[in-house]
This record gives sequence, C-alpha cells and structure tokens, in this order.
Amino acid sequence: MSAPRIGVIGGGQLARMMQPAAVNLGIELSVLVQSPNESAAQVIPNVMLGSHHEWSDVAKFASQCDVLTFDHEHVPLDFLVKLQESGIAVRPGPHALKFAQDKLEMRKKLSSIDIPCPTWQEIQSESDLQSFAQYVGYPLVLKTAKGGYDGKGVWVVDSELEAKNVFSEILTLGGKVLAEQLVSFTRELSAQVARSPHGQCVAYPIVQSTQTNGICHEVISPCPDLAEDRAIYAQEIALRIAKELDVVGMLAVELFDTGSEILVNELAMRPHNSGHWSMDGALTSQFENHLRAILDWPLGSPANTSKVTVMVNLLGKDVGNLHSAFRHVMARDPELKIHLYGKEIKPGRKIGHVNVSGDNIEDLLARAWHAADYITGVIDE
Amino acid sequence: MSAPRIGVIGGGQLARMMQPAAVNLGIELSVLVQSPNESAAQVIPNVMLGSHHEWSDVAKFASQCDVLTFDHEHVPLDFLVKLQESGIAVRPGPHALKFAQDKLEMRKKLSSIDIPCPTWQEIQSESDLQSFAQYVGYPLVLKTAKGGYDGKGVWVVDSELEAKNVFSEILTLGGKVLAEQLVSFTRELSAQVARSPHGQCVAYPIVQSTQTNGICHEVISPCPDLAEDRAIYAQEIALRIAKELDVVGMLAVELFDTGSEILVNELAMRPHNSGHWSMDGALTSQFENHLRAILDWPLGSPANTSKVTVMVNLLGKDVGNLHSAFRHVMARDPELKIHLYGKEIKPGRKIGHVNVSGDNIEDLLARAWHAADYITGVIDE
Repeated sequence: MSAPRIGVIGGGQLARMMQPAAVNLGIELSVLVQSPNESAAQVIPNVMLGSHHEWSDVAKFASQCDVLTFDHEHVPLDFLVKLQESGIAVRPGPHALKFAQDKLEMRKKLSSIDIPCPTWQEIQSESDLQSFAQYVGYPLVLKTAKGGYDGKGVWVVDSELEAKNVFSEILTLGGKVLAEQLVSFTRELSAQVARSPHGQCVAYPIVQSTQTNGICHEVISPCPDLAEDRAIYAQEIALRIAKELDVVGMLAVELFDTGSEILVNELAMRPHNSGHWSMDGALTSQFENHLRAILDWPLGSPANTSKVTVMVNLLGKDVGNLHSAFRHVMARDPELKIHLYGKEIKPGRKIGHVNVSGDNIEDLLARAWHAADYITGVIDE
Repeated sequence: MSAPRIGVIGGGQLARMMQPAAVNLGIELSVLVQSPNESAAQVIPNVMLGSHHEWSDVAKFASQCDVLTFDHEHVPLDFLVKLQESGIAVRPGPHALKFAQDKLEMRKKLSSIDIPCPTWQEIQSESDLQSFAQYVGYPLVLKTAKGGYDGKGVWVVDSELEAKNVFSEILTLGGKVLAEQLVSFTRELSAQVARSPHGQCVAYPIVQSTQTNGICHEVISPCPDLAEDRAIYAQEIALRIAKELDVVGMLAVELFDTGSEILVNELAMRPHNSGHWSMDGALTSQFENHLRAILDWPLGSPANTSKVTVMVNLLGKDVGNLHSAFRHVMARDPELKIHLYGKEIKPGRKIGHVNVSGDNIEDLLARAWHAADYITGVIDE
C-alpha cells in the first residue's frame, strides 16, 4: 500500500475529526502537537511532539509527509513558503492562507474583487479612527488584524472614548488594527466549499449559524427560510473567494444576512465548526472532502442526506465526566449523534457537539439542545 | 475525562472500523495485535503486540482495559473464563462466544430452542456418515466444528467416496465433525442485532448477502422482495438467539432463504461483513452499536437512512496500489463511499468495500460493482 502521508499541523478537534474520514479512505495521518494529550493525538498513532512556532519542528515534521495541512491558521507564513519552495505540497498554500491569518489583508483582497463586505478601514491613528467613526457612527467594531478566533481580538465600541482606549490597547499588543461598521444583521450564515488544486469545487448547502459570546453554538443545515436565489448568491460568493484566493481544501465563509444584503464576515481555510453537521447530515463530510481536496482527489457530493440537520455545540460547564450523561440522552433519543473531542473541560470551551437529522426544525432544535444541555450539566432532566 | 477503556483482541478490519465510531464518541480503544502492520494497528494509537493464544499476553492486555471485546472468535474460551472470574467485563462472554466458536455446540443449542436449522448430525464414525447420507442424500455438507471462516472448514461432498475421504482428512486435522443437509436456497440473508448486558436489543433491517467462493461479496439493505412478515420472522430469529445465548454486542445470523423456509446457517458475535453497509446507510453503524452495547450504553437507531444501500467488497486481485484508481471512480461517482483497510493485497483477500445509497437497486448495484471492479483491476474503464 502506498497511501499518501498527510501531515496535519495542530492537534485540536478539527485534526481529530479528520481521522474517521482518513481511516475509511485508507489514508495515514500524522499530527504535529505540543502535548500528547491533545485531542487529535489521542486518536492518531503518528504523533510528533513539537511547536508550530519552531522552524526546526515544522521542517522535520513536513519532511515525513507528502502533503501538509492544518488544524488552525497559526503557522508562520514564512515557514510555509520555505516548505513549498523545498517541494512539499502545502495545502492551503501560504499565498491563500495569509488572507485567513490577516483580516486586513482579507478585507483588501475581497474588496478588490468586489466581494460584499461591511464598510471597513485600516486604522493607523486616532484621526483615522475619528474619520471612520464619523462615516459609520457608533457603535463600531475594532479588530486586531491577526491572532483572533472565537470572538477573541474583536471589540464592539460604543463611543469615541471607548474606541480610543481599545485602539491604544491593541497598539500595545502590536500588530495592525482594522475598523468595521457594526452590521445590524438578522442572522449569520456560513457558506462552505471544498476546492482541489486543479480547481474542482463543491459547495455545501448554506447554513444558519448562531453564536454565543462569539462562539458558534448552533447550526441549522440547510438554512431555513432562505430564498433559493440568495442561497445560490451566498454559494457563489464562497466559490469565487475560493477561486480568486486559490484556496485548496475546505473554505468557510462566515456571512452576515441583513435581510437585504449578504456580507462577508470572516474566512477560515480548514474544516469549520459551521460544517460539523456534515459528519452525519451530508453524503460527504467536510473532513472527508478536506482530505480529498488536499490530495487532489475528486471531491465527494456535499448534498444533505436528510431534509434538515441541526448541530449544537457542547460548551464546557462544570461537569467533569461527560460520558456519565450518555445513558440518559442516548436512551431518550436513539437518533442522536454525539461527538466528543476528548478535551479537558473548561468553561466555555468547545468539547463536543451533537447532530440530529429529520424533517421538523423545531423538533430537531429541541432534541439537540436538550442533549447538549443535559450532557454539559445545564439541565438535569 | 474518564472515558471507558475498551480493549479489542485482534487487529483486523473489524477492529479498525470500530475506531471512527470510538473517535466520535470520545472513547479510547486499545488493540492486541500480532504485528504493528495489522489493519487496526495502523489507526489506533494504543497497540499492544502479543498473541491471543498466549495467556500472559491476553491477561496483561486485559488488565489495562475496562471492557474486552473481539475482532475475531479465536481467543481460547478458558482465557476468557479466567478474565471474567477476575472481574473484567468480557463482551460477548465466553458462555455466548462458545456457540460462535463451535458449530456443533451452536447446532445443539439452536435445535434445543427450536430455531430452524438445516438437518444436521455430529459425525463420529463412517457409519454415522452413512446413516446421515441415507437420510438427506448426496450432495451433503461436512464441516469442522471449530476454526472455519470465509468458507474454510466447509466441504460439499457429492458421493460416499468423497465424503469418506473428507471425513478422514478432517479427523487427521483433529476436532469434531458435523454433517449438514445441503440446503437448496434461493438466496442468503443476514439478520443483525445489537444487544446490551441489561438486555436492550435493536434489530437492523434484514439484508441479502451474496457470496463468492464462500466469501461475502455483495450486500443489499434492506433485502429486496422480502415479504414483511418473513423479514420480521428473520429478525425475531436473531433477537431470540441473542437473548437465549446471552450475546452482548453485535450478533450476525447468516440465513438460508429457500423461498418457503428461513434456516440458520452461521452465527458471528461481532460486527460482520454483512453489516458494513450500515457505516453509510444506517443512522447508527454496526460498529457504533457494538461499542454502545459492550459499554451497556443505550443503543442507537438501526434504521436505514436511504431507501436502499448496496455494499460490494473489494477482494484482492493483482493490483498493488488501490489509491491509484480513486481518481477515476471518485470522479465518475461523487456519491460513492470507499473504505480501505490498509491491508497487504493478496488474491481473494478482503481489502476494502464500497457503499452506495439511493432509490434504485439496479442502478446502485451497477455503480458499486463498477467501482469495486475498477479499484481491484478487474476492469480498466
């Protein structure tokens, strides 16, 4: 067997959830992790301990792989350029990944290709901030260009005073600052596509994504009450971004739906929380299609297998042993699909998710939320 | 996290395919294998090298587990009795497993509880053989009580001379001999159930199973053109066997359908080839339900997620690199689910399978067979 060797940098739940797809396809994964207890290191035999911030670790890890991909966006771009120059397939490549690492670069690029975005501006001085605030009004959004995730690195500011304080705080952290109009959206959507090096793309159904404190908490696939032409429009945005930025693998485009407009919020170039429903609700999960895409294999059908699939994240509370709740929720609902990441439980941390598929959205939401709340200890009956 | 530690004895593809279900449920598997290259050892981090024939290896492996289960039926029963006496949960237990290990014990037990079987008799002498042959006529079937699988240990004999030769050949191999009527069946069925220690059972849809040279090759789920009352009758046979034999985990009952009668052919107390369709065609795969059953967790729904799912096994031919065919079959059929076991390819060996789901049996059969034939090199277009 000459199975292609895929190296995944980062050992979180996204790397972990690539393993079932890899096992089925007869592919060997390796992971570069900082600790043997990380989520993916528990389930993948080929583990290298090391840091994605250390060139020697990354180079050594990459030398054992045919194709390199990522659990997260935090690998320094210059490492990836060097690896690519040495002949290793880095997917997505650094020329694409920079737009997922840097929100300012992303806004510049998307605006240059006429992708609809919230009004934005790079903020280099207090006067930049004042003029932008005069244009969009308060409240507005300030972001660090790099390093944010799950709502971190994002501030909504209500006044000039608050804006100045946040701005100077970000400046002391270092890095560039971006201001954006606070979009008064009615809901958030996510558009996911897979794209392979030779340019094949598939688009998943547009989903509705609901956040709690900036963390994805609930996803409904396909998005309810979304007119077909708007769904196609949102898919086309994602397909165009994937092509124009030359993304390889999964791309998630988080979108604001204002009722009239659909605007791009963020990009992720990897499997994404808004696609976890696909593990049980699509013919080909986002994890399988990520692997197929980075191997330049033909992509699998992204079609739904049920009318609706609902996903609810398990966010850590005070309950230490999640398995103890399994008897209750499994007995109550034999159609439920429970996913745990093997992660140490911290309040608010993503530690798993539940999927449930069927016909009736209200029924599915009630069942998924009951299970999630019971497993995490929010309710006890 | 206090995930229960499950130990699987044997490193074949059945152990391997438990891993995706375990990863999702946040369960840690360990495997006892004879070589690090075995199918399951490639995808499960916790590997112990050792032999299931060596008490010290089995005892050491079991001491690190909360629950012990199996990839195959070849662990000596006295080992399992000792482990059980020492407080380790052995599932299925030796009192059930003996009926899967020994076809003579199985026939005695099933006949004692009025489960319909082919006419059978233990053969201890040539005169036993003659009298049984007079009763059922030639051709008839001779079997070794123990050690057979995938058609091995089974002989169809056409004449008294051939029967005597086979009988003396089996005697020199050692072990008991069983004779059975050659059932003129119209097709073979398989009934699968999962059963937990406290007695919960779920029954999968009855499937049609087609063998090539004694090896399962094609499965259609649910079985086409099977009257509902006969399907329920077949499910009831499997449920009754699971209960009466106190099986824990997955039970597969291979059945002959003569058009009028349904007779039990063989039993397997583990996930079974006739249930591989469930990985992509059922709400809960046989591998997930096996894990849930042996942990005494409530069982998942075994319902089909499509009208029909077809599975075709990949049996080794002369092609060395199966992945090289992926581009062609994946491009041709984006709905196909391909499973490879990472096994060295030998002619006739089970090295993977393909599943495809939809509405039209003929269409699904054509697509699954094309993919299987292309991947294994039987056809090249």
